[in-house]
Amino acid sequence: MTSSTTIKATALPDFPDVKAGDDLAALIGEGLGRANIEVAARDVIVVAQKIVSKTEGRKIALADVKPSPRATEIAAKALKDPRLVELILSESQNVLRVVPNVIVVRHRLGFVLANAGIDRSNVGPPGGEESALLLPLDPDSSAARIRDGIAARLGVAPAVVITDSFGRAWRLGTVNVAIGVAGLPALVDRRGTLDRYGRTLETTEVAFADAVAAAAGLAMGEGAEGRPVVHMSGLEWSAPAQSANALIRPIAEDLFR
Amino acid sequence: MTSSTTIKATALPDFPDVKAGDDLAALIGEGLGRANIEVAARDVIVVAQKIVSKTEGRKIALADVKPSPRATEIAAKALKDPRLVELILSESQNVLRVVPNVIVVRHRLGFVLANAGIDRSNVGPPGGEESALLLPLDPDSSAARIRDGIAARLGVAPAVVITDSFGRAWRLGTVNVAIGVAGLPALVDRRGTLDRYGRTLETTEVAFADAVAAAAGLAMGEGAEGRPVVHMSGLEWSAPAQSANALIRPIAEDLFR
Repeated sequence: MTSSTTIKATALPDFPDVKAGDDLAALIGEGLGRANIEVAARDVIVVAQKIVSKTEGRKIALADVKPSPRATEIAAKALKDPRLVELILSESQNVLRVVPNVIVVRHRLGFVLANAGIDRSNVGPPGGEESALLLPLDPDSSAARIRDGIAARLGVAPAVVITDSFGRAWRLGTVNVAIGVAGLPALVDRRGTLDRYGRTLETTEVAFADAVAAAAGLAMGEGAEGRPVVHMSGLEWSAPAQSANALIRPIAEDLFR
Repeated sequence: MTSSTTIKATALPDFPDVKAGDDLAALIGEGLGRANIEVAARDVIVVAQKIVSKTEGRKIALADVKPSPRATEIAAKALKDPRLVELILSESQNVLRVVPNVIVVRHRLGFVLANAGIDRSNVGPPGGEESALLLPLDPDSSAARIRDGIAARLGVAPAVVITDSFGRAWRLGTVNVAIGVAGLPALVDRRGTLDRYGRTLETTEVAFADAVAAAAGLAMGEGAEGRPVVHMSGLEWSAPAQSANALIRPIAEDLFR
């Protein structure tokens, strides 16, 4: 007999605009209070990368960036601002592909993604200073810090997942994935466990934190910036907590090149 | 002002084992009744591929399969049963990569995935006839048929998504994705829409049906077979409905090869 399982994902209403130095854990605690959400230890708080990056001061004025010759060359091929390309290169281990509008890189954090996750949309009003928003320096640490801050305020430590929207190799459209994780397993390895008929399961590594990220993305809505924090409940896990690094396929195991 | 949005995903309890010829829409209708779920038109019913394939008779006895020389050759490299490899090849447009335990193919339906989505786990008790379960012949049609069947029984036509768990090029672990869609947009194209500051959004194709699939996967649980049907509510969409084909990146646009 299996029991009924309900997963809920609720976006916190009216989350304020954030700026460098803001205490995200405090704002999330207030947002949960406004939504009358009582947080439990096995709940998950999912936070959009943009607001983490903003509070951590990862917004860079393009006027301060001097593009290298290599950035200028790639920018011509990608039809991008050379200063933005300089930032993309500075955030990346290597460039995998350049086509108009997209530079696919392996990010210094290990993720393979477009434009090093650097976004120019929604980082501030137009007309003012042109700027770009980089990924957090260490999203796992950011997740742990937010988790600790929530625990200090609410007396309970829900898991925290920081998400960004990534493209995929062979499928169109972006989905939210986990780039920072605290307090839950990123990857659940079920190899060797038995199915309901007692046969050993074959393909059984499940990207749990990425599924959590994708589900929260639905609650964040299409214009993610307006609802950047989601509370989730009803999730089950038994594997130990891991960082988001567990989700990165090692270069040597890259099946798809 | 943004409003609070709650997405719910509930796995139907005690869903029965299915066999070829079973009426899945009827079983889903009964399952919704058992769970006391009142279905609305903008709800989504998410169905694991395995039970769709089983009811459609896509289970193949390996004893009936004669491996070709090519299948035997690839099987040696992949360390797989040559009869299973013969089925993988017969379901595929082309083979992209062969390594031990994994054959990455472009499926005849266009999806790039491991082992053509053919699974030997959870298809029946061991000791009996060895068999493999292929993907549905046309998962979009399967989704439409299930949707129509539910509408005929309940008087309301929720969207239907058929899911399977796929690996990813550069991330470990599988996530559920949409392989069949009826009644909702697979891909939401927001290119040209404006962000909250009035700036045009850059990266804005969202794989909506894949996010729905991933969220439902959390409710299905790690042993997906036991909870193969999930009811979701609270989703919002305005784009027209599309088939799951909309999620397949055309070969010519493959950024990642």
